Amino acid sequence: MDNSRANPHNRGEDGLPHREPPECTHPEARRHVFEDAELGHKVDRATFAKRQVALREALLAAQVELGTRKDLAVAVLINGVEAGGKSESVAALTTWLDARFVEVNAYDAPTDEEREHAPMWRYWRILPPKGRIAIFFGNWYTQPIVERVMGKGKGRDAAFERSLEEITRFERMLAAENVLLVKAWFHLAKKTQAKRLRALEKDPDTVWRVTKDDWKRFKHYDEFRAISERAIRRTSQAEAPWTIVDGSDEEYRTLVLGETLLSAMRARLDRPTDRRAAKPATRAPKVDEKTILTQLDLTQTITDAKYERRLAKAQASLARLTRHPRFRERSLVVVFEGNDAAGKGGTIRRVTTAVDLRLLRVVPIAAPSDEERARPYLWRFWRQLPRHGRMTIFDRSWYGRVLVERVEGFAAEADWRRAYGEINDFEQELTRHGAIVVKFWLAISKEEQLKRFKEREKVAFKQFKITDEDWRNRKKWEDYAAAVCDMVERTSTAIAPWVLVEANDKKFARVKVLETLAERLKAELGHE
Amino acid sequence: MDNSRANPHNRGEDGLPHREPPECTHPEARRHVFEDAELGHKVDRATFAKRQVALREALLAAQVELGTRKDLAVAVLINGVEAGGKSESVAALTTWLDARFVEVNAYDAPTDEEREHAPMWRYWRILPPKGRIAIFFGNWYTQPIVERVMGKGKGRDAAFERSLEEITRFERMLAAENVLLVKAWFHLAKKTQAKRLRALEKDPDTVWRVTKDDWKRFKHYDEFRAISERAIRRTSQAEAPWTIVDGSDEEYRTLVLGETLLSAMRARLDRPTDRRAAKPATRAPKVDEKTILTQLDLTQTITDAKYERRLAKAQASLARLTRHPRFRERSLVVVFEGNDAAGKGGTIRRVTTAVDLRLLRVVPIAAPSDEERARPYLWRFWRQLPRHGRMTIFDRSWYGRVLVERVEGFAAEADWRRAYGEINDFEQELTRHGAIVVKFWLAISKEEQLKRFKEREKVAFKQFKITDEDWRNRKKWEDYAAAVCDMVERTSTAIAPWVLVEANDKKFARVKVLETLAERLKAELGHE
Repeated sequence: MDNSRANPHNRGEDGLPHREPPECTHPEARRHVFEDAELGHKVDRATFAKRQVALREALLAAQVELGTRKDLAVAVLINGVEAGGKSESVAALTTWLDARFVEVNAYDAPTDEEREHAPMWRYWRILPPKGRIAIFFGNWYTQPIVERVMGKGKGRDAAFERSLEEITRFERMLAAENVLLVKAWFHLAKKTQAKRLRALEKDPDTVWRVTKDDWKRFKHYDEFRAISERAIRRTSQAEAPWTIVDGSDEEYRTLVLGETLLSAMRARLDRPTDRRAAKPATRAPKVDEKTILTQLDLTQTITDAKYERRLAKAQASLARLTRHPRFRERSLVVVFEGNDAAGKGGTIRRVTTAVDLRLLRVVPIAAPSDEERARPYLWRFWRQLPRHGRMTIFDRSWYGRVLVERVEGFAAEADWRRAYGEINDFEQELTRHGAIVVKFWLAISKEEQLKRFKEREKVAFKQFKITDEDWRNRKKWEDYAAAVCDMVERTSTAIAPWVLVEANDKKFARVKVLETLAERLKAELGHE
Repeated sequence: MDNSRANPHNRGEDGLPHREPPECTHPEARRHVFEDAELGHKVDRATFAKRQVALREALLAAQVELGTRKDLAVAVLINGVEAGGKSESVAALTTWLDARFVEVNAYDAPTDEEREHAPMWRYWRILPPKGRIAIFFGNWYTQPIVERVMGKGKGRDAAFERSLEEITRFERMLAAENVLLVKAWFHLAKKTQAKRLRALEKDPDTVWRVTKDDWKRFKHYDEFRAISERAIRRTSQAEAPWTIVDGSDEEYRTLVLGETLLSAMRARLDRPTDRRAAKPATRAPKVDEKTILTQLDLTQTITDAKYERRLAKAQASLARLTRHPRFRERSLVVVFEGNDAAGKGGTIRRVTTAVDLRLLRVVPIAAPSDEERARPYLWRFWRQLPRHGRMTIFDRSWYGRVLVERVEGFAAEADWRRAYGEINDFEQELTRHGAIVVKFWLAISKEEQLKRFKEREKVAFKQFKITDEDWRNRKKWEDYAAAVCDMVERTSTAIAPWVLVEANDKKFARVKVLETLAERLKAELGHE
């Protein structure tokens, strides 16, 4: 089937996602997204039967290949009007596939755990691993569109635009992380939908499917049509185009869905495997020695008396603030990065002793598990995020992508380069939902590190802290320094700034970290 | 420290968990669990300082060993009276350990997702992986004790006894699955507790810790003491003894907690590694050829006309029943096991097409992920269980333990032998919380299997379904048959019976499965 003919809108020709195309001088020349889908496409029984056999075999073969190669996950988004045949077509599709490796996800109202996380958390938690196909009814498009049409708020248009932009970035990230997105929009003309809803109501076996809400929404058909069209145009990217499915004929819409999935999978599976060489990054030439790191005054110290007093005071503040009623609507995400032996562990301990242990989780980041490796990079961090009223400390974090993975060449250059933007998006989403994100870089001098390494080798119960890897990393001191400078430059945002901590004096560092945390919390909660 | 002296109750001498010890003829001779903990144990500063250093070093060493060996997880249960110093001692303990590998879990009220699963689900979901230590405040003891003392219901004593029995079995299973349980009960005499609560209330920094509930519960101090004592005696098993900690002195209780943890970890880490040879099970001698499998009439068939009619009718029932309002308080767990090529996939598809896809999940069980391997065997199934109103189909299941793992020798004999009881406990817990558990064994004859294997090799799009492993398994036909007979005999319970399905005729099998499901649902919901 010539998909491009049946669905003229999945070419992404208006694929510049953040800008409305200019108004045409000849309005009649501007085609609408749903126009084709209202033509009443049909396919006859015989054609259907014939094409179904071939399609089925090809789909199954593609699925088996997907499961064997395990280098790609498939997410199928099913959206569109009620009674447009979404469930029926997906049901047919799953009988053509090996149902064991297809997950169908539906979202109703969020659970309370979901409400206490950023909105995308509920989708992240069930992203399919590589080798699998997941179908999402009621996905990340549903809420923004419904709220834009049915909501009352003044800022809802701006909020809608923001959502579309977030979705665009999110889907681009998924595509880059080897999640193939297949997006199908089931459409019915207004009259057809009304007829369909009434028919469902008449049949005692299907009457349950039509709710009051469906009729309420039907009254806003035209608005939904316009807003959906905007969503579709804005989010039709090269990596994740929409296919509009005329839902009026059962055989037709099922074939279109199946063939769209097949052609998307085939195109991706047949593409020569991406052999972006993952190699250590080369450093940019330096003109002088001045960097944000060399500018740090690492000689700063603190007297023991001041240390005791200020630490105790900051700890007491932190204890009070994390118990504050306003904190129950917020959460705290603290990131610790730093040179090896910069004193992260000891500093973290000063934080944990201040806070009610039951509100807190420390997450050390080491090698990912195989479940984590099978999903987009950020998945392992999403799954550890705190609910409202709670706090998570990441001992190393998502910044590994632009630090160790960049320097050691574990990530291809294209991958760590896009990570800066992805990380900023990620942190923005967290903060928008009430999380307070605080990020510390603990910096020590090369000489101080050497002193600490040697000390660790000497003291019996510190030996586990020093490994060959630490010595190897040390040889790449300059590469790491360059990566840190880039990281701070690109991800120190107003909502989640980096705090550089001079850590040659451990006590000075601890006080700076604790006081920063307390001040930040106080400012965010507007209260001590 | 001589633990056995300070804590006379962790020897498990009354470790027969399901029976009250007989009343003593000399009542004064019967010692109480909390007696020792009310003696006002103390340790002086100097002793504490000295012992702390050694303890700390030893704990850290044990933790590093635990993390390196990765063959054991540690779960520390913290229970006892309010203001008994639980949080403070745990806080001190975590500063002695490498905090990155210690998780502290606290449970308040269950979330709605937790309420829609069996009660133990919330604990299963955060069991620590091997190599880690997890501390549980407010664990599986809290609810049963509070409900027994504060509840109003008539059957609450019976419910309490049942809970204790369940806990005993659960902890025995954890121990067998290499989760070391360290259970500490913090105790205060009545007067001491009252004094402590008042002191906390006076200090502005701690007043938040004393709630109205605390005082309400304090009024029931004597009852709590008696019921807690019963819980402690009943659940002090050799594998998981309780340590009663006198909470009146800060240094003392912290040392006891730390040394209890250390000695439990050392004992387990120093124990020679369990080298139970995992070898294929030998078959029990047979006297005749009669088994539940040989007794099946595999010649049963169904005509095409009857098949169409009865399948459609059963599917319609299933569709209606899973949408029934009463189903919103229940869930459905369906297990499919059977000979290779018995037709599980095709049968499952007939179920899935009948049910609203959005309520359903099919979980194929293959090799466990590394996260799953790091936790008790049943963890991977717990994480897939349906919420209320939902349905999960397991394509192969927890019965792998007593089938393939037994026959192929992947599990040691002791492990698969205890699995029968553990599985029965597991299914009982599910059904008690409203799950409907239906289990199918699809049986075909050896000849029929051969025919199907050959057919699969011929048809292009069926080839992925036949592997060398299938042929290997076939050679052990008799071993599998023996395992199936044992499995059915030991796990076909009134609440979750096995249904043997004669599957030489695929259509006959499908109808039997669908009709069984519909009938079972109808009976459970008391309604069509």
